[in-house]
Amino acid sequence: MAIADDQDLRTYCEDVARRAKAATAALAMVTGQQKNDWLCQSAAALRSNLNAILMANSQDIAAAPEFGLTAAQVDRLKLDEQRVDGIARALEEIAMLREPVGEIIESTRRPNGLDVQKVRVPLGVVFFIYESRPNVTADAAAICIKSGNAVVLRGGKEAAHSSRAIVNIITEVAVNNGLPADAIQLVNTTDRAAVGHFLKLNNYIDVAIPRGGEGLIRRVSDEATMPVIKHFEGNCHVYVDRDACLEMAEKIVVNSKCQRLGVCNTCESLLIHADVASEYLPDIAASLEKNDVEIRGDETTCELVPSAKPATAEDFGKEYLDSIISCKIVGSLDEAIEHINEYGSGHTESIVTNNLQAAREFTCRVDSSAVMVNASTRFNDGAEFGLGAEIGISTDRFHARGPCGLAELTTYKYVVYGSGQIRS
Amino acid sequence: MAIADDQDLRTYCEDVARRAKAATAALAMVTGQQKNDWLCQSAAALRSNLNAILMANSQDIAAAPEFGLTAAQVDRLKLDEQRVDGIARALEEIAMLREPVGEIIESTRRPNGLDVQKVRVPLGVVFFIYESRPNVTADAAAICIKSGNAVVLRGGKEAAHSSRAIVNIITEVAVNNGLPADAIQLVNTTDRAAVGHFLKLNNYIDVAIPRGGEGLIRRVSDEATMPVIKHFEGNCHVYVDRDACLEMAEKIVVNSKCQRLGVCNTCESLLIHADVASEYLPDIAASLEKNDVEIRGDETTCELVPSAKPATAEDFGKEYLDSIISCKIVGSLDEAIEHINEYGSGHTESIVTNNLQAAREFTCRVDSSAVMVNASTRFNDGAEFGLGAEIGISTDRFHARGPCGLAELTTYKYVVYGSGQIRS
Repeated sequence: MAIADDQDLRTYCEDVARRAKAATAALAMVTGQQKNDWLCQSAAALRSNLNAILMANSQDIAAAPEFGLTAAQVDRLKLDEQRVDGIARALEEIAMLREPVGEIIESTRRPNGLDVQKVRVPLGVVFFIYESRPNVTADAAAICIKSGNAVVLRGGKEAAHSSRAIVNIITEVAVNNGLPADAIQLVNTTDRAAVGHFLKLNNYIDVAIPRGGEGLIRRVSDEATMPVIKHFEGNCHVYVDRDACLEMAEKIVVNSKCQRLGVCNTCESLLIHADVASEYLPDIAASLEKNDVEIRGDETTCELVPSAKPATAEDFGKEYLDSIISCKIVGSLDEAIEHINEYGSGHTESIVTNNLQAAREFTCRVDSSAVMVNASTRFNDGAEFGLGAEIGISTDRFHARGPCGLAELTTYKYVVYGSGQIRS
Repeated sequence: MAIADDQDLRTYCEDVARRAKAATAALAMVTGQQKNDWLCQSAAALRSNLNAILMANSQDIAAAPEFGLTAAQVDRLKLDEQRVDGIARALEEIAMLREPVGEIIESTRRPNGLDVQKVRVPLGVVFFIYESRPNVTADAAAICIKSGNAVVLRGGKEAAHSSRAIVNIITEVAVNNGLPADAIQLVNTTDRAAVGHFLKLNNYIDVAIPRGGEGLIRRVSDEATMPVIKHFEGNCHVYVDRDACLEMAEKIVVNSKCQRLGVCNTCESLLIHADVASEYLPDIAASLEKNDVEIRGDETTCELVPSAKPATAEDFGKEYLDSIISCKIVGSLDEAIEHINEYGSGHTESIVTNNLQAAREFTCRVDSSAVMVNASTRFNDGAEFGLGAEIGISTDRFHARGPCGLAELTTYKYVVYGSGQIRS
């Protein structure tokens, strides 16, 4: 849909947000069973409406050239029976997760007999802005609704038809299960200005979650008047300590860098203790190069690895999202920690060591959302941490840090039961 | 101190914030014992430096007329031996609270053997802006440091000398106990522009906490580039249900309204179910009027209570902070809940009922930081909830809601222990 007039667009956005907020009151009375029935029946409905989904998807594929998508992007956009089944299965898995709403997180009986309970409740309205594949539409709706929130989905134009088909199907199932129709709304326009309007509506929207390139995230973060759950980038480090096992270090560095390029928990920078650099680095470098990774190192690195290119100061602050790794030889654990806290993005760092004191100091002093000991940085992920599903990773300190699953889309309220207590 | 030039002021503020951030690295290595020693020795030092504190306080008292303080405000500003002892005791009580930093909030062993721990860590740097009495200076410093944060204190000009004396004493004790000197900094100027400069420094400051009048809180909230922990106002309700015990209802309404006027958890609005209004309201109104409370009610209220004044629509949205209460007769529990969610400020509401179904529905649907059943609204308070100490009450949904104690000044990071795991 194209809404020509900016005033009309503003009115449209406000209407969507207001209806989402109104839906939260009805959502407060929806049971876990209703939500799980919705998820499982939505999965079935996606499978049985395969043709409608593929038809919509073919419109997106046809429009891809006009959006200038690369072949790889078109491939990620394309749906087939197996991929639609994958989307359906993801909903079924979310149905199996424990109900988050209503959980008593803590409770105390006070000396005066009051029972003070901290009870988990939904955040309210989530505004989710994303650029990627159609499966994200279903996933995000499932995570938001399972945690009791209404969601306003703002997908990319590339997947507009596929997302619309998916939302139509799962909304129909929602209504059949007594969920408010406005609990899931897909924004009807891909006009960029709409995002700006929504980001002003903090009286209706409780949190904005952008997922996509750094440009999108910076824009949302700058313009939002409500809290944002986000990370800008992942400049993740592996530090190979003096007391590391070479074989383990090699495995972890290679996995952290090469298991998947272009994702936020991939290692972008390698630090090695000077005492073991001449013994370890040539082997590790050879393994990286076997995986076509280019090494950009400091002076000592370049001496030990003749094929390495000299790193600039910029290299150490960079998220390559590519087959490149920066490398620095550090004189001490201290230097490694200080380097990480200066150049890192607070995302994920790993130490390889068998020294307990070093492990404790590294995990205590490195200020990142996840700090690993003897494990790949690639494990900083909702599913790997056992959260079941994730809507994003936060590198902020407020509210949620690291992978954000169902619990991170909730807040709490105090519920206090008494028998007539008054304060004296 | 007066910093004449705005550029100098900006530089000063940036320097304070930068040094606070730098102090957080050292704070990460400070033990609970060091923090508790600091608290207890600070308490002793405040007592033994009584004369210096009283001397500084007398300067504030002397300056009070030029700030136009009322007699009541001057009285609250005034320190004596007993009040200084109270400040000291508060520090000793905070020392006795459980160490929040390093607590493993949750942990899971994953199928691949990874131990994933969610570990409590400080937020970082707290910017605390307050208007009130000198004891708040010591309290806020204690809560922030005990939770591992560095704090920038921006007190009101009225208590500038007293606050300076207190901060000098506790900072000296801090340094003697190995805490970084910059962990506690009292802003050296009462220039209002300084607050604006600090609120821009989100690269150094992790959270702003304003405490004082609504004007201050709105200003901080509007200008802050970092998260803010706050509440604007407390328009709290007591709803007397059809199934309430009259005696209990009367006690709770009177206590909620009269136990202390002018605080945020005081009841400002009374709702009574129509079925019991004619029986209950006259008694409750008489008790309120015995406590000099003026009643402003809807039509039925005015019929039942001839002394009541008619309420305007404005009355129901008002935080009086005074001997006035608004009163409305509602036809159902539903109407009570809807009225509260429309007019309330999300702070504290109480239902008086012996009906389990009504209690469950009220606590589920009323969207406030604390929802009480058969208890006074005045219990929404950190100490009453067992948090030990509080730095404020939040009516926001993000990060912290309700009374904010030590835990609410922390975040977490994931610490993951493995034995060489890589992702496949």
